[in-house]
Formats: sequence, structure tokens, C-alpha cells
Amino acid sequence: MSRIPRIVILGAGYGGIVTAIRLQKELNYNEADVTLVNKHDYHYITTHLHMPAAGTDNPEKARVDISKLIDEFKVDFVKATVLQIKPQEKKIILADSTLSYDYLVIGLGGEPETFGIPGLLDYAMNIRSINSVRFIREHIEYQFAKYKREPFRKDYLTFVVGGAGFTGIEFVGELADRVPELCKEFDVDPSLVKIYNVEAAPTALPPGFPTDLVEYAINALTNKGVIFKFSTAIKECTQDGVVLANGEVIKSSTVIWTGGVRGNRILEEAGFETARGRVKVDQYLRTNEYDNVYVVGDCSIVMNDEGRPYPPTAQIATQQGDVVAHNLVASIRNTAPKSFKFSNKGTVASLGKNEAVGVVGSSKIKGFSASLMKKAIDLRYLYIIGGIPLVIKKGKFF
Amino acid sequence: MSRIPRIVILGAGYGGIVTAIRLQKELNYNEADVTLVNKHDYHYITTHLHMPAAGTDNPEKARVDISKLIDEFKVDFVKATVLQIKPQEKKIILADSTLSYDYLVIGLGGEPETFGIPGLLDYAMNIRSINSVRFIREHIEYQFAKYKREPFRKDYLTFVVGGAGFTGIEFVGELADRVPELCKEFDVDPSLVKIYNVEAAPTALPPGFPTDLVEYAINALTNKGVIFKFSTAIKECTQDGVVLANGEVIKSSTVIWTGGVRGNRILEEAGFETARGRVKVDQYLRTNEYDNVYVVGDCSIVMNDEGRPYPPTAQIATQQGDVVAHNLVASIRNTAPKSFKFSNKGTVASLGKNEAVGVVGSSKIKGFSASLMKKAIDLRYLYIIGGIPLVIKKGKFF
Repeated sequence: MSRIPRIVILGAGYGGIVTAIRLQKELNYNEADVTLVNKHDYHYITTHLHMPAAGTDNPEKARVDISKLIDEFKVDFVKATVLQIKPQEKKIILADSTLSYDYLVIGLGGEPETFGIPGLLDYAMNIRSINSVRFIREHIEYQFAKYKREPFRKDYLTFVVGGAGFTGIEFVGELADRVPELCKEFDVDPSLVKIYNVEAAPTALPPGFPTDLVEYAINALTNKGVIFKFSTAIKECTQDGVVLANGEVIKSSTVIWTGGVRGNRILEEAGFETARGRVKVDQYLRTNEYDNVYVVGDCSIVMNDEGRPYPPTAQIATQQGDVVAHNLVASIRNTAPKSFKFSNKGTVASLGKNEAVGVVGSSKIKGFSASLMKKAIDLRYLYIIGGIPLVIKKGKFF
Repeated sequence: MSRIPRIVILGAGYGGIVTAIRLQKELNYNEADVTLVNKHDYHYITTHLHMPAAGTDNPEKARVDISKLIDEFKVDFVKATVLQIKPQEKKIILADSTLSYDYLVIGLGGEPETFGIPGLLDYAMNIRSINSVRFIREHIEYQFAKYKREPFRKDYLTFVVGGAGFTGIEFVGELADRVPELCKEFDVDPSLVKIYNVEAAPTALPPGFPTDLVEYAINALTNKGVIFKFSTAIKECTQDGVVLANGEVIKSSTVIWTGGVRGNRILEEAGFETARGRVKVDQYLRTNEYDNVYVVGDCSIVMNDEGRPYPPTAQIATQQGDVVAHNLVASIRNTAPKSFKFSNKGTVASLGKNEAVGVVGSSKIKGFSASLMKKAIDLRYLYIIGGIPLVIKKGKFF
């Protein structure tokens, strides 16, 4: 008696949700059982989180109910926290149950990489989930309210963002937009508010981003009041702020760390060969140890043609989801799998309202047109996962 | 050479602002110099503060720029904190200057009365100013955000309101209305949120309030989820919550004390005869010691026909402002002063959206009609101080 193969997808981030959505389109009736496991009953759009974190958009715009994205007749959804993966036994240990699988897709997402900087885990906040950005937004507003009670506490009005990569840059852009509103709401003199962006590298945005666009971004944000400190590592984060490598101390009650992402400890504990929690996958996105286990998103490492890992992005995770779904179907049907090849459609970094910089195809764009492009990219993703209804519901129109 | 008499009004609360507005109407050109001193450049509507504190209305609705209320050609406004009153020298010491007066009106407002309960000053919040209610609103929202990070901390979702007088009752009504919104916004199960109202007296609302209305109010609020603890004094407030007289401990990160108001320490330090910071004024609202010093609002004591002090309310302060202005003009013109006689127009306590109880004239009202009456009273006050334009700008319409 032949059993229907069971596919389990861990995590409903970009990679996981696209895998699930593609599978429910491709698979025929009774060809496989698909179970999607996620900690929350919603998917969130990580690339949008810098806005609700700063309070410039509603967190609801950055999440979608999973029930709206999957067809419950085709995919089972289990809301649960994954505790452990046992690849030899083909079992997943959830917080209060156990799942067996024939095929596994791991898309559990990354964790903040603190590079061992003391205090970051304890005192810094991270932009990484709906809960975390609601927390950051409330925390920021609360600092303004606290300052009005203790006007000698300038540290309440000092905001330190560690890291000037995509997330750090996009967040300081939003925060700089939000500050005048907060000052008005709480009767605070805007000149008292300081936003620091501290980066160990000598400049902003990822290596390889065109120098003129980087310069444009730094100027645009400096004009909005952001104070950049490049080539400056954070030595320590304390309850009172940060100590910089040059010995300078910035007193601040709000430190937000965007300086790095690593893979997930669950993969290390499962015995996969990992580098900072990431698994180097083969051309079909499978682990080297198990050809029934696929890894997507922040937990996976894919090498570029120069032998260096691609940075983990929403774009690559989405493309991985497509290929993993194809390869799962191929494996079940004994047809040919597809090799994964990242196709870079470009990247745009928002710099707050109506400002952005980016590279799309071979074009460098900046300013208002780049901010429109950013919105178009966001809408395109909504279209991919949820079609026109989702675009209408969650899309931020011009 | 005769000098123009100088009138100084300390505080732009109900009593002070009405005194200033009436004076600018009554006084002729060059009949007196009037200076109004206030800590903020706005007047706030204390009876409305329970709403922005709970987050059910914008704090802007509860304040009015003083510049919109006074005519700068007739009244000088000084934004300053009053440090000391020297009645023998007829001088006021401000934070960075000094003022001399011929006539003084003290309307500095009250302070929370903690009855010596340990920890209330350090750990409890008070509904008493725009800054304090913005703080409370942000504090409450922050607790929901914190709970999502530490779901074992039920104390983040436990709110203790000390005192079931007007402020306490009106606040728990608003908070109970706000909680479902907050639960939706932060994905929190509403059954986990607890609102306690703890009162040393055996029942709610001030002594003399009709029993059937008190019962109606308690039922309405209980149905909204408020847990009342009557005949229960708070023994101590700590960083972790409150200890009740019966030994019970309520763990809570949010304690709001509405249990009492006393007068102002500045009056005690000035050498006036005071009881809990309040000055018993004569029939013309003057101090016994100085017939050029008037006291209005929470800092004054006026006795009723039974020889008991009227509770300090917005209503009595407003009426006092009228009489003080009349008596100042009379004193300057050497005409007859007016004796103050409180005319009770009635009181309505709001119980959240569309619910209230009150006594107006000889009628007891409750429910929706009472909530309309409450709004009418609020609008009437806006009309008194700012006319139709203010009613349109700040009034909450039906």
C-alpha cells in the first residue's frame, strides 16, 4: 500500500510561504500532504518592517493572515513553535506535538548577529517581527512621554541605530520623518532629538552598491538630521547607551541593532553543517546530508559566481521558494529538478517619504522615482503571494 | 502720581483662566495691569483628561492655547513656573524672574493626596496634566508591547486604579473601552487583561451621589470588565504592584492613583493658614491674612451651608473665577464686592462611550441621555471660555 508523501514546511516567511503557495498550485489532488508550520498565524513582510517600527505605517500593512494565502483544502496549517528538527528520524518536535515528514523545507528565518558585542542581546532592540516593531514603536513614543516628566534626561531623546545596511538606513529614514510629528505631539523641541547611525564599515549600504547612490543616500539622510558615524564599531551596549570603539559614549535609552543577521540555532542543533547558523545548500537547495531536506531564506547559503555567498534577502528567498516547490513536485513525480540560479532584479533602499536609491537592471535610480519603484516592488510581492485582492488590501498607494 | 494697580493671576486652570477672561471684559483701558502666569502656554480641561489618559481621545482635545483665550492687549501672559509667594512683600518668585502685585489671585491647582501610603509617590501615576495623561497613555500601550515579548508577565496586562471617585470611575470606563482595541492591535487575548478599581470607601462616586445611580454605574462598569474592590484600602504601592489592606497583592506594572487631591505646597510655604494645602477663604474669596489675595480652585476651601467644604471641582472653580473678577474690579472702583455662593448645576460622571450617570437640577439621569448631557456640559464650558469658535474646534460632537 503506497502512502501519500508528506511535505512539511517550517516557517511562513518569504521562502516558506512561496513554497506553500506554489505547491498548492502545482500538486494534483492526493499527490502529497502539505503542512505549513509557523509560530504566528500570519506572514509578515520583513522589507516593510522599518515603517511600523518608526511608527510611520500601521503594522497591519506589514502582515497577512496565512489563511488568506493558503487553500486549507490543499495545505494544512499548524500554528506552533518549532523546537527541534530530527532529520535522521524525519521528525519535527513542536512545542506541544510532533510531526513526521518525507520531505522537509526549512525556512525558519534568521536571528540577529551580534558579533559577540557585549550587551547587544540584553539592551538593543531588533527589527525582525511584528511584535518587535510594535515594541520599538511603543518604546520610542514612551521615551518622548518620559522626557516630558524628566526634562534633564536627554538620553530619552537620543536614538542609536547600529548598522547602516539596508535595514539600518531604511529605519533611520523613517525615524527622521517621524521625529517632527512626535515633537509636535509631545511638545518637544526638535533640536533636542538626536538620531545616530553607527557603522563599523567606512560607508553605508551593502558592499558593491554604487558609490554615487551611497553618497546621495547619506546626504539625503544627513539633511533629515541623521548623524552618521562610519568606521566606528560599537564596543559595548549598556543600559545607558553605547560605548564606541573610540571610547566615546552615547547616552541613549533606545538602541536598535540592525548590524547583522545569522542563521537559526535550530539548524545547528539538528546536526547540519552550518556556518553562523546557515546551511550551504546544493544546486537544488537541498542539504548535503539529506536529499529530502531543503533550506530556504536566511538559513541557507547560496554562492554567487565569484564563490561568495549572496546576502540573504526577500528577493532570493522568494526565488528559492519557487525552485523548492518545483523540485519537490519533480521528486514526487520522478521528473527533472531545477538548479537554483539567483536572478537579481535590483534593489531599492527607501530613505523615508518620497526618497530612495536603488539599482534596477542596469539603471541607477534615486529620489522620488526610486521611491515609486520601491513601492512597485512591494506591490509586486503582494501580487505574487496574494494576487490583486491583497494588493488592494495591503498595498500602500501613491 | 497714581499708579495703575497691578493684578497677578497665578495659574491658568479653571479658576485662573475664567478670572483673566472676565477681567479683560470688565476692566476699562488703563484701569489695571493684568498678568497671567502659567507653567504651560495652554489651559487644559481637567474634566476631559480621563479620555486621553486611556487613549480614547487626543490630548489636543483637552487643551487650548492661552493665546487663543486672552487678549494680549489687555492681559500679559508669562509662561513660567511659580516657585514662591511672598505676600508680605507682594512679590512672586518665578523660576527666572520676579513679579510685584497689588492684587493676587492664586489658582495654582492641587497635588495628588497620597494619605501617606508608602510608594504611591514613587510608583503610581496621576491623571493631572497633559504631560501626565500622555505619559499614562504611552505607558499603557507599552505594557501591551512588552507583554508580547514576555508572555509570562501577566502583570503587564493588569491595571490598578486607586480611588473610585469621579476621576477613577471615569478613567476605568474609558480604559475598559480601550482595552478591546489594544488587544486587537497587539494580538492579546482580552480575557488576560484585568482592570481593578480599588477603593477604601464602601462604594463608588462621592458621598451623597444617589445610591441607585451609583449602583447603575458599578453595574455598567462591571459589565465592561472592571473588577471593583470596595472597602479595601491600598496599604502600599511597590514597583511590582499594590499590597491591599487585607494582605492581598495585585501584581501590576500600572498603578494609577486618583484617590485624593490636596492643595498646593506653595501656599503652605507662603505662610497662609492651610489645611492640606488649602486656604479657607472668606465670603469674597480672599485669604484671612491679606485682603488683596484671592484663592480659587483646588487651593481654596469654601464651606457649604452644613459647614463642610465643597469638593473641589471645575464647576466651583469656574464660578469662583467669575466672582473674583467681579470683586477685583469692585475693589479698584471702590464699589460693592459680591459674596461667593456656589450654585450646583449638577454633576455627570461618564462611564465610557455612551454611558454616564448624573444629577442635573432635581433630575437623575443615566445611560445615553446622561452621556449627551456630559457632552453638553463640556461644550458649555468651552463656550464660556472661548465662545463658538472654541466649541467648533475642540468640542466632541455627538
